[in-house]
Amino acid sequence: MIDRLVSGRRQPTTTELGPGDDAAVVRCADGRTAVSTDMLVEGRHFRLDWSTPHDVGRKAIAQNAADIEAMGARPTAFVVAFGAPAHTPAADAAELADGMWAEAGRLGAGVVGGDLVQADSWVVSVTVLGDLAGRAPVLRSGARPGATLAVSGDLGRSAAGFRLLWDRMAGFDELRRRHLVPEPPYGQGAVAADTGAQAMTDVSDGLIADLGHLAVASQVGIDVFTEGLVSDHLALVAAAAAVGEDPWSWVLGGGEDHALVAVFPAAVPDGWRVIGRVVDGPARVLVDGASWGGAPGWQSYDSGAPLR
Amino acid sequence: MIDRLVSGRRQPTTTELGPGDDAAVVRCADGRTAVSTDMLVEGRHFRLDWSTPHDVGRKAIAQNAADIEAMGARPTAFVVAFGAPAHTPAADAAELADGMWAEAGRLGAGVVGGDLVQADSWVVSVTVLGDLAGRAPVLRSGARPGATLAVSGDLGRSAAGFRLLWDRMAGFDELRRRHLVPEPPYGQGAVAADTGAQAMTDVSDGLIADLGHLAVASQVGIDVFTEGLVSDHLALVAAAAAVGEDPWSWVLGGGEDHALVAVFPAAVPDGWRVIGRVVDGPARVLVDGASWGGAPGWQSYDSGAPLR
Repeated sequence: MIDRLVSGRRQPTTTELGPGDDAAVVRCADGRTAVSTDMLVEGRHFRLDWSTPHDVGRKAIAQNAADIEAMGARPTAFVVAFGAPAHTPAADAAELADGMWAEAGRLGAGVVGGDLVQADSWVVSVTVLGDLAGRAPVLRSGARPGATLAVSGDLGRSAAGFRLLWDRMAGFDELRRRHLVPEPPYGQGAVAADTGAQAMTDVSDGLIADLGHLAVASQVGIDVFTEGLVSDHLALVAAAAAVGEDPWSWVLGGGEDHALVAVFPAAVPDGWRVIGRVVDGPARVLVDGASWGGAPGWQSYDSGAPLR
Repeated sequence: MIDRLVSGRRQPTTTELGPGDDAAVVRCADGRTAVSTDMLVEGRHFRLDWSTPHDVGRKAIAQNAADIEAMGARPTAFVVAFGAPAHTPAADAAELADGMWAEAGRLGAGVVGGDLVQADSWVVSVTVLGDLAGRAPVLRSGARPGATLAVSGDLGRSAAGFRLLWDRMAGFDELRRRHLVPEPPYGQGAVAADTGAQAMTDVSDGLIADLGHLAVASQVGIDVFTEGLVSDHLALVAAAAAVGEDPWSWVLGGGEDHALVAVFPAAVPDGWRVIGRVVDGPARVLVDGASWGGAPGWQSYDSGAPLR
């Protein structure tokens, strides 16, 4: 089975030794590697009645890659541990691996190793390595008052797609896709770092929630301007009307889009939109100068509703 | 909760950035990092009625570390994804982390990041990074006829301990401990590499099974001499008699001790025992020149017996 998952894959030049031995060997040219890990659990982070195994593979790679992007680095290699019931069709595992390779390929990265074990339900645990190429990592703690807040990538799509799937609402295919497979703005993390970003994170929990982490780490206030988010709002108005939701709750509180938010001292690079400003503390996030009354973020499928 | 797991830990100098941001940053001084991942599933790789959370943490670190040792590298950093039910006591998670730090500390390595998610039962997924310090990785594929097979560490203890636990047999505490927490021969992987080892792997599935992987990768035969394994046999005779087992089945077929087996072109370094010889192909493993009739290895708690 493992042979089937690893054979015929094309490793990037950073992979000095791929799968098949006790460990892989990955180049880290500047003498450091960024590393992050995320675990996805069936019924909590994905549903197999909504997602194909290929979707699950892409999502697992994408959300790990976004953590590396958010440091100003470029993902180079992934290792994957996959737990599944004994009766899982081999074709499903192969499709999961294909999805991982498809997404890793978009990054020029490789899947260099893994583990395959029995579990009661699907568990996909991914670790990503990243290359900072000599850059200092862009932390959450560097934001200073007066700087500009900007975003790269879209907001609110994943939350909208989740609600449409949950309500079994037809149409809005693109939004449903974006819940199943997020589309982080690959490459923009390094762009932000090279433009002097003071602080950065990816939007995994929700814009307000993740900016809250950044505000606390930097001990600053952050004021979000909704006028910078009009394009996100507009993209969601129709779907929001269809399900009776306020689109701002998705834009400001929806997670898992894995957009990047960063703080720039001056000009914002191409591919980024200004959405706010860093202000003096206390550490808090305001929206148009006032407190935001909606949910700040999202925590997987934790509503208590039965899944499968 | 995550704060409680990461606060107050002392990172090694190789950890340039520890937990708390989107990713960690780890030094890899020679421009490469070895990487490996292993997932442990409750009821399959450990039982919470046998193991304390501290034991589970130590085991998860130890078995990942052994994969890095088996390349001739030294473990530097671990990332950990932990899935557990919502009702899991915070103290259990803290104890798991303490066990991981205790074992990582024996290696001079750090736990640099992680993820904490809800799951139906405990799932512990660990990824380890390792430093080759300029050495070529020692693969499974380099064994040549005429070379000497040697082992560092003990064999059969984990399998004996498992059987004693399974049979609820009193006594033999040390063997039971060795099933719950393996003791790989830390540091000996690098020693083997520095002594010119042609090939190496760790004993995770069982001596005959793992040597089989090495024999296939190297396209050689391997002849194991039981006279080199007398000390392992002797250590298990009393426990084997108590449960009515042949101690050789544990020495030759028992997994999870995470001893290292390596092939040396000439002299064997201190800390290693000669246990056989590499011969011309076909790729197969013989014991004292003949086929071994017992089980070649072990595959977790896969007997079909109900666990919990």
